[in-house]
Amino acid sequence: MKPAEGRKRVIIEEIQPMVDCGRTPARRFLGDRVAVSAAIFSDGHDHVAARLLYKRASDANWQSTPMIAQPNDLWSASFEVDKIGPWSFTIQAWVDHFDTWCADLTKRLAAQPDPTDPARRDLPPQDIPLALTIGALLLDGVVARATGDDAQQLKKLAASLRRLAAQNLALYEYPLTAEDKALVDRYPDLSFAATAERELHLWVDRERARFSSWYELFPRSTAPAPTAGKPAPPSHGTFADVERLLPEIAAMGFDILYMPPIHPIGRAYRKGPNNTVTAGPEDEGSPWAIGSPEGGHKSIHAKLGTLSDFDHMVASTRANGMELALDIAFQCSPDHPWVAEHPEWFIHRPDCSIQYAENPPKKYQDIYPLNFESTDWRGLWDELRSVFQYWIDRGVRVFRVDNPHTKALPFWEWCIADLHRETPDALFLAEAFTRPHVMYSLAKGGFTQSYTYFTWRTEKAELQAYFEEISKPPVSDFFTPNVWPNTPDILHASLQTGGRAAFQQRLILATTLAASYGIYGPAYELCEHTPIKPGSEEYLHSEKYQIRQWNRRAPDSLAPLVTLLNQIRRTNPALQSDLSLHFHTVDNPKLIAYSKSAPAIPADGDSPAAPANTILVAVNLDPHNEQAGWIDLDLKQLGIHHNESFDVEDLLTGTHYKWHDRSNYVALHPATTAHIFRITHK
Amino acid sequence: MKPAEGRKRVIIEEIQPMVDCGRTPARRFLGDRVAVSAAIFSDGHDHVAARLLYKRASDANWQSTPMIAQPNDLWSASFEVDKIGPWSFTIQAWVDHFDTWCADLTKRLAAQPDPTDPARRDLPPQDIPLALTIGALLLDGVVARATGDDAQQLKKLAASLRRLAAQNLALYEYPLTAEDKALVDRYPDLSFAATAERELHLWVDRERARFSSWYELFPRSTAPAPTAGKPAPPSHGTFADVERLLPEIAAMGFDILYMPPIHPIGRAYRKGPNNTVTAGPEDEGSPWAIGSPEGGHKSIHAKLGTLSDFDHMVASTRANGMELALDIAFQCSPDHPWVAEHPEWFIHRPDCSIQYAENPPKKYQDIYPLNFESTDWRGLWDELRSVFQYWIDRGVRVFRVDNPHTKALPFWEWCIADLHRETPDALFLAEAFTRPHVMYSLAKGGFTQSYTYFTWRTEKAELQAYFEEISKPPVSDFFTPNVWPNTPDILHASLQTGGRAAFQQRLILATTLAASYGIYGPAYELCEHTPIKPGSEEYLHSEKYQIRQWNRRAPDSLAPLVTLLNQIRRTNPALQSDLSLHFHTVDNPKLIAYSKSAPAIPADGDSPAAPANTILVAVNLDPHNEQAGWIDLDLKQLGIHHNESFDVEDLLTGTHYKWHDRSNYVALHPATTAHIFRITHK
Repeated sequence: MKPAEGRKRVIIEEIQPMVDCGRTPARRFLGDRVAVSAAIFSDGHDHVAARLLYKRASDANWQSTPMIAQPNDLWSASFEVDKIGPWSFTIQAWVDHFDTWCADLTKRLAAQPDPTDPARRDLPPQDIPLALTIGALLLDGVVARATGDDAQQLKKLAASLRRLAAQNLALYEYPLTAEDKALVDRYPDLSFAATAERELHLWVDRERARFSSWYELFPRSTAPAPTAGKPAPPSHGTFADVERLLPEIAAMGFDILYMPPIHPIGRAYRKGPNNTVTAGPEDEGSPWAIGSPEGGHKSIHAKLGTLSDFDHMVASTRANGMELALDIAFQCSPDHPWVAEHPEWFIHRPDCSIQYAENPPKKYQDIYPLNFESTDWRGLWDELRSVFQYWIDRGVRVFRVDNPHTKALPFWEWCIADLHRETPDALFLAEAFTRPHVMYSLAKGGFTQSYTYFTWRTEKAELQAYFEEISKPPVSDFFTPNVWPNTPDILHASLQTGGRAAFQQRLILATTLAASYGIYGPAYELCEHTPIKPGSEEYLHSEKYQIRQWNRRAPDSLAPLVTLLNQIRRTNPALQSDLSLHFHTVDNPKLIAYSKSAPAIPADGDSPAAPANTILVAVNLDPHNEQAGWIDLDLKQLGIHHNESFDVEDLLTGTHYKWHDRSNYVALHPATTAHIFRITHK
Repeated sequence: MKPAEGRKRVIIEEIQPMVDCGRTPARRFLGDRVAVSAAIFSDGHDHVAARLLYKRASDANWQSTPMIAQPNDLWSASFEVDKIGPWSFTIQAWVDHFDTWCADLTKRLAAQPDPTDPARRDLPPQDIPLALTIGALLLDGVVARATGDDAQQLKKLAASLRRLAAQNLALYEYPLTAEDKALVDRYPDLSFAATAERELHLWVDRERARFSSWYELFPRSTAPAPTAGKPAPPSHGTFADVERLLPEIAAMGFDILYMPPIHPIGRAYRKGPNNTVTAGPEDEGSPWAIGSPEGGHKSIHAKLGTLSDFDHMVASTRANGMELALDIAFQCSPDHPWVAEHPEWFIHRPDCSIQYAENPPKKYQDIYPLNFESTDWRGLWDELRSVFQYWIDRGVRVFRVDNPHTKALPFWEWCIADLHRETPDALFLAEAFTRPHVMYSLAKGGFTQSYTYFTWRTEKAELQAYFEEISKPPVSDFFTPNVWPNTPDILHASLQTGGRAAFQQRLILATTLAASYGIYGPAYELCEHTPIKPGSEEYLHSEKYQIRQWNRRAPDSLAPLVTLLNQIRRTNPALQSDLSLHFHTVDNPKLIAYSKSAPAIPADGDSPAAPANTILVAVNLDPHNEQAGWIDLDLKQLGIHHNESFDVEDLLTGTHYKWHDRSNYVALHPATTAHIFRITHK
């Protein structure tokens, strides 16, 4: 069947950004300039023109900006996203007959036979008056589309072309000014304009989605230490205790304080210290065994405080320049109210028992998973969504979601989109340590940030390959990493054996490779490194199962380094985005070097000027030995010219070095671990 | 808004083959096995299963085949396309609870405490009878979906699990056979099966679309040479003369005989020999200046013969095992009947003249382009389509389309699809020497094959880069190259200066790099190499403007080499497809080496066995000097093991060599030009 309008001759292809053929919105951050590109072309030699149309999804009308031709039929334009939430864009392109005429006239004028010029004397005659008349006719069309002064101006222009044609000169000059052309371009003939097959969408998050520093802490471990000389079992910390610590955590430079579940803890099959299967009467249990007769996901564990204590803590956190992140873990202790109220949300076995979590031979009888194939899946989805809404209504805007990959992916897509409709500033961090496709699918389903494989990537080659993948399109168009050197579940082998140098190294990598990172503290800054048994990634005396007391004043705490790194991140925009990450070659496999810059240097490397802020990081990956080598700098990525001298200032020590050209030597002792250089041009 | 069914938990992504998000069908050839892959996964630990659904577009029902899990959540399956025309496929995937149960049972059985085994003595108890009962319940569901004997068999299976559960043994063995599992898999539970977002399409062409050898000839230059001693101007060849040559052309091994336009030639502004602007009364003009009072695109130039002569020639061509390809050039001489009958199909200038083709300072007053922005574009489209239909009705199935990129791209998409509906065996070769996006767009729009940049790619690096691009997905999923070392428009500089060795070299490259190729003869085999002027790619005394006489019996004709190469192509399936092309490293930039194999070795290189037919080509790109070097064979691509010895037979000379392992030496004199080795394993 013929199309409705066969005269739409322009093809629009290969639009970027586009995730999964447009099914998923590409992610951007508030204030970003969104670069859109496409292949745009038509048949024959006629010129084409194109414009980018964009708007907030809720706006009625498109804004537009002209697209600029690049080599190889590619066109580009950009727009700034100055509000969070959903945006839309599309492309319109058409054959530009006036522009074609201008180019044709230029060629014709250059081809006029000129009796005074031996080189042009014998050219065949050109009918310039006819060409001018054609131009005037095209201008008549433009006049019809214009209004007011512009229309008058265009009318005069058409008349002037006709006058010129009538003069029948021997030789003609080009009759239009750049202003004339710009005026005409304001009134394109869109009768046969093609529009991209589908409107594309963006989701724009607030700044903290891009740049955030997370501190995880168990509130029950925040009670003041017992008075010296009076040994006593640690008492249960409260929200009030957390509040007391807020200035200290804020001073370290964190902006998100994340705490494990704060809900009543189940009694049935409660785990004892070190994950033992039988708990004593004094054992506190795991905060992830959620729910007891006192309540479930919308209740607060009484030992932590009241709802009003919680509200107070939320306000204090904000007052300290931070936000509180809650842990949403959709699983139930056998005592959770949902078990009795909604038995259809769980899997029942033939013996009428409820299926607990299990991976033979391991049994997790304290945890009932939810059944996403429940006949009442609609009721289940609504209730789960209402958990987020409940805490949103209490002022929480950041959620760390526990194991989202064990809940149905379509649920997340619906739930987050539905929450975002009224609360576009809500952020969701996916704690999904699983296979790549599933992690990426959660990001496409709406999760703002995701945990990563960073925790297990310790060699140079694997760090580079992984960060190349996640910091560049297509992945970076939908996935934002949040890297953690440790979590309550993961004490990586490198930290168990690498000593303080390993803790420094992994912290520096985390804070400079990724714009968003987090540590589980104070275990991290106090270099807690003993596993429950050899070969395990579980902490000995894990806070998951017992209260711990931490000596936050320990003289060998890494807190000063944490503070310095967070300060470097705050004062260097280069470290506040992932997209500009670029690895430089070092001739030593134990040394890794990379740079970031702000604003980012475009992919083609043709930056008009050196970036305002450039950070170059070199890290010794060997916690036991000094490593030295030559960095072969990719100067283009640093905005440095060949043979240029430049100043590098190590922000960790304040030392300045004068460097020259691409090859530069570094030597790093494990105690030093790294250079974080700010590059300054003359 | 919630989805209609929230329990569809499986995600299907990254389906291949898919061109432009499914807008364009991927191309395949009759008899191909179409490999389909996708990322398929769900939440949690449940197993998923998937099947590929496929059918000819016109069939009512899908056929299906199970997909097989590959690493990293990828799944694959394939089907054979045994009919030409449109095909459809899609993917269905679901959580496979029975398969999950089987895996769970296996783990449980391995985790049973065994008092006789010290390693398993202290494991916690496993409730195997309960697990068996759950399996029996799942089987009850399968029974309900099955019929006849299968249902009876499944019922027995469920009963046997229940009996086993009742026995309450100390230790259980795995109770199911592979046959039991296969039986269950025949009745999957599709209640919550997800289906790929869109149905995808294929277009399947006949074999000649993939593998073809074209010979272009001007029929007017085929008259018998004047009797010796009686010099006379060459007389005008006829279809009858062409018929006389058919056995000879067929014996050279060609399967498509292509001739420039055969229509009446315009008188107005007719071009003389060597493209002079004034033609004498005896000058024949260019066949591309189509149309005269005698007729247009559906008429035959009287000097070539009658319509019945044409029909006879079509039949003779087929009788000689070849097909005739017509040249369809949608442009008009000022004398073409359309000019008077449909003035609205042309662009009119303000002076009432019709716009001729022009690129200032050049004027092509003998050619009127068609106006695809005509108000009567529907009438124009219909008439152009009817030109193809007219010749299809006379038995023509192959069309070489002149400059399709100067006609509206949406026209081609409609025209070819519309013709293909009734004539799916019609083949269209796009003569589009233009920018990459436009060439690819024509292929996506339906053209079967396309001319390429091969004509201008003479250096090793550029040949490799170009053929890597066009012989691999994504390009090979929609674009099929047809490479020409010369055309009546293009006598490349390398042929002007490289002598006979250059003609040999370019012919060998064309016949072995691409499964489809063509030469413009007899200019090619007679090594016609004089340009109209230095720096021009135009032939002197071009047949485009005058009749030529050729001495097909010339002793130095390359016809024997052409014949041998076509024979090598016909007897070696490796050379009949483009997809297996693989370049091997040679330590000399003037030597290029590549292999092809049939069946193609899969991309992951893990072929179960050596391919049945493997050809390895080494070509000296220097027509003036001997070049020698070491080929570093990629043994995996040849199905050869490390340290294996193998026989290579040069099909050009019949010489055998014994080669061993990856490094092998070649030395090629310009007169020899190349080795075309067939690799034989012990």
